[in-house]
This record gives sequence, structure tokens and C-alpha cells, in this order.
Amino acid sequence: MDITAAPPTATEQRAAVAALSQVLPAHAILWQSEDTTPYECDGLSAYRQRPMAVVLPETEDQVQAVLRTCHRLGVPVVARGAGTGLSGGALPHARGVTLSLARFNKILKIDARARTAIVQCGVRNLAISEAAAPHGLYYAPDPSSQIACTIGGNVAENSGGVHCLKYGLTVHNVLRARGFTADGEPVEFGSEALDVAGLDLLAVLVGSEGMLAVVTEVTVRLVPKPRLARCIMASFDDIRKAGDAVAAVIAAGIIPAGLEMMDKPMTIAVEDYVHAGYDLEAEAILLCESDGTPEEVAEEIDRMTAVLRGCGATAITCSADEAERLRFWSGRKNAFPASGRISPDYMCLDSTIPRKRLADILLAIQAMEQKYGLRCCNVFHAGDGNLHPLVLFDANDPDQLHRCELFGADILETSVAMGGTVSGEHGVGVEKLNSMCVQFSAEENAQMLGVKHAFDPASVLNPGKVIPTLARCAEYGREVVRGGVQRFAELPRF
Amino acid sequence: MDITAAPPTATEQRAAVAALSQVLPAHAILWQSEDTTPYECDGLSAYRQRPMAVVLPETEDQVQAVLRTCHRLGVPVVARGAGTGLSGGALPHARGVTLSLARFNKILKIDARARTAIVQCGVRNLAISEAAAPHGLYYAPDPSSQIACTIGGNVAENSGGVHCLKYGLTVHNVLRARGFTADGEPVEFGSEALDVAGLDLLAVLVGSEGMLAVVTEVTVRLVPKPRLARCIMASFDDIRKAGDAVAAVIAAGIIPAGLEMMDKPMTIAVEDYVHAGYDLEAEAILLCESDGTPEEVAEEIDRMTAVLRGCGATAITCSADEAERLRFWSGRKNAFPASGRISPDYMCLDSTIPRKRLADILLAIQAMEQKYGLRCCNVFHAGDGNLHPLVLFDANDPDQLHRCELFGADILETSVAMGGTVSGEHGVGVEKLNSMCVQFSAEENAQMLGVKHAFDPASVLNPGKVIPTLARCAEYGREVVRGGVQRFAELPRF
Repeated sequence: MDITAAPPTATEQRAAVAALSQVLPAHAILWQSEDTTPYECDGLSAYRQRPMAVVLPETEDQVQAVLRTCHRLGVPVVARGAGTGLSGGALPHARGVTLSLARFNKILKIDARARTAIVQCGVRNLAISEAAAPHGLYYAPDPSSQIACTIGGNVAENSGGVHCLKYGLTVHNVLRARGFTADGEPVEFGSEALDVAGLDLLAVLVGSEGMLAVVTEVTVRLVPKPRLARCIMASFDDIRKAGDAVAAVIAAGIIPAGLEMMDKPMTIAVEDYVHAGYDLEAEAILLCESDGTPEEVAEEIDRMTAVLRGCGATAITCSADEAERLRFWSGRKNAFPASGRISPDYMCLDSTIPRKRLADILLAIQAMEQKYGLRCCNVFHAGDGNLHPLVLFDANDPDQLHRCELFGADILETSVAMGGTVSGEHGVGVEKLNSMCVQFSAEENAQMLGVKHAFDPASVLNPGKVIPTLARCAEYGREVVRGGVQRFAELPRF
Repeated sequence: MDITAAPPTATEQRAAVAALSQVLPAHAILWQSEDTTPYECDGLSAYRQRPMAVVLPETEDQVQAVLRTCHRLGVPVVARGAGTGLSGGALPHARGVTLSLARFNKILKIDARARTAIVQCGVRNLAISEAAAPHGLYYAPDPSSQIACTIGGNVAENSGGVHCLKYGLTVHNVLRARGFTADGEPVEFGSEALDVAGLDLLAVLVGSEGMLAVVTEVTVRLVPKPRLARCIMASFDDIRKAGDAVAAVIAAGIIPAGLEMMDKPMTIAVEDYVHAGYDLEAEAILLCESDGTPEEVAEEIDRMTAVLRGCGATAITCSADEAERLRFWSGRKNAFPASGRISPDYMCLDSTIPRKRLADILLAIQAMEQKYGLRCCNVFHAGDGNLHPLVLFDANDPDQLHRCELFGADILETSVAMGGTVSGEHGVGVEKLNSMCVQFSAEENAQMLGVKHAFDPASVLNPGKVIPTLARCAEYGREVVRGGVQRFAELPRF
């Protein structure tokens, strides 16, 4: 991981802070190491780096001034929301400014009739739903971190959640974003209309991890709160049957509000922690949620039950009331901390495979456990084919760390070979730069660099993240020829 | 409209044809004017231009060879599907090669379990649904031209249709596209997984009107054919009530399978043509479709009926059977030809506004009829806020033509002022280049040019379309300052 840019000299740092002091009040600039240390990592704590400075602007004019200043000085800018990202997208740059948007926390408008909300980028995901609740509406994407993570960070990472199978990812729920280009020009993406003319730059902005622009305000779609939700918990005595059942539910024309899977090691870890009532004999369990009107839910629950039974479920329980439904989900939502209780460390992967290959990848991961001599708990957004294998290891044992890295790389390469992708919803950040070389040819990575260059020719926005350099592709790529290298070489290095 | 590139000299044309003959069989190259004339326009027949040559490759290798040849010679390449586009996106370039993909008409795989189809780009939209029908599946986006238009053209234009309110635009139904870059490099966008790592280049490819790459193969999502569909026809004695009813249906949490609106001049023109049983006394009618299981449909029809009644509908009829449902739709689907019967010419616009402004735009268009002394029939994808006003005029009367152009521009500018966009689903092509200057700042258009440049630095793919040049922005733009001009000037001219 090349996050080892040399730290700035004291002179460089002083010059940058002095320039920022021209456009920001003193309390909005942090640069002493005790003040910047809290910003040294995001949710991916394996990588840490103190920034040259942290700024906390309060107005759009200040954001613009910061960007103009940094652009003029050639100082990298790393935008930061709540810092809950899991791939190091908000990892500071040693010679850069971390642009915290924490103070952009106002909900500007809830328009119940248009079913939209206009919010500042630093508003927490869950706060949008709370503000919309009096109108019977909510914001659908629900990453596990929704109590803390911000809509700006969701836009940067194209966040998902357990309900995105039915309700879509962030990109499907954002209508408009406004903010500033790398050199401080105001810019808007999308509109309140369904579609927009010309190239769909909003779609490429969402998920671009702060590389293309800094977003300050977002218009999101709100959806009606379903009148009822019920959840089925189904047990399987065979991991292949459970995987096949997921594909069968979808193939039957049902789009559940959530469709999650856990394997036996995971349910055991979770049950011991939150007592969700999971079947500890099952090799795998599925959680299948239905929401809508009572009539819709009743009919869908019946159909799902029939499909699951046909696929060999050994036990099927449907939540009788809201308390039981929440208890079923409490296990799923605590899968990560539950893993933390049974192992000193765990590495969470995020690859996605075509749904019909679920059973195949599960069996492949079981074989890898033998090969690398490490245990792995599996929790999946199964309906999306989005895996979250948690490889358990002890980071203090260099050999275990090494085997864990090989294990992770093997999962990612196997996912790509099955027609999948290395990241479903956690982003690339710094963590998956090498994986990008596996998934994409140098030519394809060069196209992404070209798009980056179109927005940010001087490469001041979050440089070094998301898209691998030519050198990295040459070292880690599945191929470095196919005509891509020359064009790649013409592009600036990040 | 700058489609007035000088035609090639005979020597230039001979050289290009000779080079293409090295890589294609003779029958796959057309260059004599009687052979190329059928390709001189697409569905926007107001603009015509014969290409230097037309090629009809049959294999991906031939497509690659054509692209390599044209790139080497600096000859523009305009990809063409069925030529049904409505904004001139496939209008030939006088010095360019029209790359017809008509022979890529094979359905490669229907995977009922994964609910996907892999098809060549020249497969007709409806042919996908026909091939999927034995599995109880279909391809959801249904542009009016679906019997003729191809999936490659749908990808280029991000086509919609009457069902896209519930089922999404093309971009929401395409998982993967493969093809070639401008210089003939093979490239893939997306994957069979739900999301993809890095920048979402598939999303920017869809709707890019042949400017970024040439697509030869597409993986689309299939959805289950609903067990039942029923359609409500509702009459209103006031256009504002009808517009408000559309917003009220959506605000009530209902996403109809289709939600269309026609005003009185439109229903009269249509009824006279196809006898769909429309209410000729109504100032506006709505068609609201519900699909799903019988239980879902019954419940949704009840809820929609209650909302429409609450909004003042003067008559509500629900289709009793499939024949009646199809009769209701026959009028809507024949709105364009019906307009052709009552006027020598009509100009169809395609702007989109936030749904809650429907009534406002309708009243504004009524006022414009007085201002410009021309009649306008209105048919809307009302649920999406996507307008298709048909301005009636006689192209042989220069004054009427001029007033019609002003009328159209006024509708577009008013749509943008209401928070909408100049094109909902027909694309920009050559038709809306000036409108792009109204909707977007020079800076924003420059970003789109930057993306174009990242994919196609030599600008051989469909040059001169979709994104206005600096000169055009300066002439037609809402603004030409705001810092965008200089960066714009650094970019190549198309």
C-alpha cells in the first residue's frame, strides 16, 4: 500500500496553514499532531496516516475557498464524512488536507409531496429517515453504520445495506448532488427530474470516493414506510441447498425486502453474543424479509415459504410480531462485533458474485479454510450476491497475517473468476488497489484514470486511491499488455 | 445545426473504402450514393446527411478491424442500430463511416435461473422478451419503437418506455456491456454482479449515444411477467386536477406499472384514429396501470381509485379484461401517428420536470399556444414527469417553422427553470445541442467533454453530437463565464 508519501517539512506545513488561515477562522483549522491524530484513519484502522492539516469549514463559500487554496498550492484534499468507511477511502494524505464536512449537518427541506429530501452532505443517514418519519416516509439505503455515517460518505461509496436488493443502492436513491470541482468551481449533477440529458455524470460521481468533486448538498428520494414487515428465518442442513434457495427465491419472481445468509460458524458466534434465537444445528440460515401492505406481505410470505420448503429447508419460522422480527435481525446486524469476540482480528471482504454461484463460492471458501489453515465466518447480502466473509486471524502472528492476506486475495480472485467483482459496497479506497488490477485490465483502469483526469486534471482530490497506477497494474495485474499500457503511460501518475 | 462538414473528395473516399476492403468482404461495404441514401437519417428525419460509407460487419473481429482502420485514418465512426432514434444520434457524418450493427442479431443465452439474457447488440428489444417468454420472463424497458429498435440503440440512448416508472430505464436493466474502444481495444463494462468496483463506467456508457465505445454484446436483467395487469382510465375536467392527481398517486406510496396522461387535443386526435374509448369531454385523462399478483393488483387498483376520486376525477373505468386493457393502451401508443393525421408536421419534445410541477407546465404550454399561435397536443409519461408535447405546424410555412422552434425552445427552457431537464429519454443527438447550453454551464459541458476525451482522445466516435462545443456554449449558453471557458478551451474541439 503506497500511503508512504514523505511528510511535509515544517516550512511546507506552515505555508499551507497560513494560506488556509486567509480563508478560514482559526478554530476551523487543525494542524498540531494531537489535534490531527483523531483523523488518522477511517473504519479501516489497519492503515493510519496523519494529515498535514484538517479543516472544518461551515459554509459552502469556505469549502470553495479551501479548494481554491489547495488547488493553487498543489496540496491534496481528502474529503471526510463520519469516517466510517471500510476501505480507507478517507485515509489522510501525509502532505494533504483532510476536509471534514462534519459541520454540514442541516436538513434543508423535506418535500413530502415530491417525496424528496434536500440535505447537507454531513447529515447522518438515519437522521434523514427520522426527519421524514412524520410524513410516513424514509430514506431506503441502510448501511450497517447508518446511525453514524453521512449521506456525503454514502454518495462517495455508493453505500448499500440489507434492503438494497429491493430498494437499490445509493445511486438509485440520489437525484441530485451539488458541490465543487477540484479547483473550487460550483457544479451540479443530476436534477429533480427522473433522468438527465447528456452523459450521466451523477452516476459516475456516486461511488467515486471523493476523487471527482466535493459534494456539499444532496437531494435524495424518499419512499413510503411499508405498513408491515415480516421476516422468515429458514434453516438448511447443507450450505449448497441454502445457496440454491436464494437463487430459487429470486427466480420465482420474488424480490424480498432483505435476503441474508449466515453460515454455521457465523450463527454460533452471533448467537453466543446477542441470543437472536438462531438454529445452531443448521449449516446455514437465511433471513427473508417481506414488506408492503398486509395483503402483499401475507401473499409473499406464503410464496417464499413454499420456495424455501421446496429447496429443502429443515425449519422455517416467520416473525409473529415486530419484536420478533427485530430479534431475528439483531443477530445479522451484530455479525461483525460477534466475530471480534471470537478472534483477536478479522478481515472482512466485500466481493460480489452472480447469485447463482453462491453455493459454489461457499464451498470454495470452505476449501480455502483448509488450504490457509484459518477459519472464516460467512455473512452475505445473499440476494445481491454480496459476500462478507470474515477471515479470523491474529495480527500479532506474522505468519497468520500473511496467510490471511493470501486467503483474502484468493476469495477476491475466485469471485472475479465466477463473474463477480472485488467490491460490492465498501469501496476500493486504499485497501483494494491491488484487487482492481485483478478485476480490470490496464486499459480499463486507464479509462477510469481518464475520467478522473477529466474532472481533476491536477489530481488534488484524494490522489492515490481507488484506481491503480500503471506501476501497480504491471506488478499485480492479470495482464499488462493488450494495448493498454501506452495510453496508460500518457496519463498523469497519481 | 453543424452537420455541414464538407463531403469527402473522391480520392479521400476511395482511400477509405480501399482500407476498409482490406478488413471486410466487399458485400459488407456500401459507398455509392444509391446504397448509402437509406442511411441518411434516423427517426429524426428533419436532418439528413449521406455518410462517406456504410459498413455492415458480421463478427466482433470485423468491428475491431473497422475501428482500428478508421482510427488510423482519422475517419469518424457513427454506430447505428435500427435507426429509430428521435434526436439524430445516428445521423451520419459526411466524412464518416456509418457502422451498422444490424447483423449482430443473435440471442446468445437466456439464463432463467439467473434471470439474465446475453444478446448481441443488434437484437430487437421485443425479441428479447419473446425469447424469454417461455420462462415466464421479459425485458422490462419498452420504448414505443420496441418492435424495431435494438438493445444496442437502447443502451446508447438509455431508452425508457411506459413501464420505466416501476421497472427503470435501460441503465437499471443492463448488467454488463462488452465492445470496443474508439481504437479497437476490447473492453467490458459492468459485470453479472449487482455492483462493480471502481468508477461506474457502465452507467456513463449507457446513454452516451455512441460517443464513448461501440457495444457489441449486452447482458440484460429479465423480470418475471406479472400474473395480472389492469389499467384504470380516469377523466378530469381540469388539467391542474389531473396533474395534481399524478403527484398524489405517487405521494400515496403507489408506484404504478404505468402512469400516463393525455390532454383533450391529444385524446380527440387519438380517438378519431384508433377508437380506444377515451372520454372526449375530459380536459385530460390518466391511464394508471397496476401489475403483479391478483391480490396485489386488486389492492392497488382500490387505492389508486380512491386517490383519483379524491383528486376530483369525473369518471373512472377499470379494464375488465386483457382486451379492454390493450384497447386503453392502443390510444396512448398511437399518439404520435394520430398527431401526424391532424397536422402536416409536428415537433415532439422530450423534456422532464419534477412530477409536482406537471400542472404548472401544462398551463404554461397552454399560454405558449396563444403566444406562438400554434396548437400543441400533450402526451406525458406523467409518473416520470417526462413530457412529450407535440407542437403542430406546417414545415412548408417558414413563419410557422420559426414559431414552432421558438415554442419548442420555450418549453425546454421552462422545463429547466422548473428543475427539469431537456431530454427524458430521446437523447440529445444533434437536435438538442443548443438546449444543452441552456441546461448546463460551460463548466458542466466541459466535464462531459472531458469524459468523452478520456474514452476517445482522437474523437472518432460520433463526433459533434450530444455535447456542445465552446463556440456553441458561447452563442447559446445561459452563461459563458464562471471559470469554465479556459478549461473548455484546452479540450479538443469535436
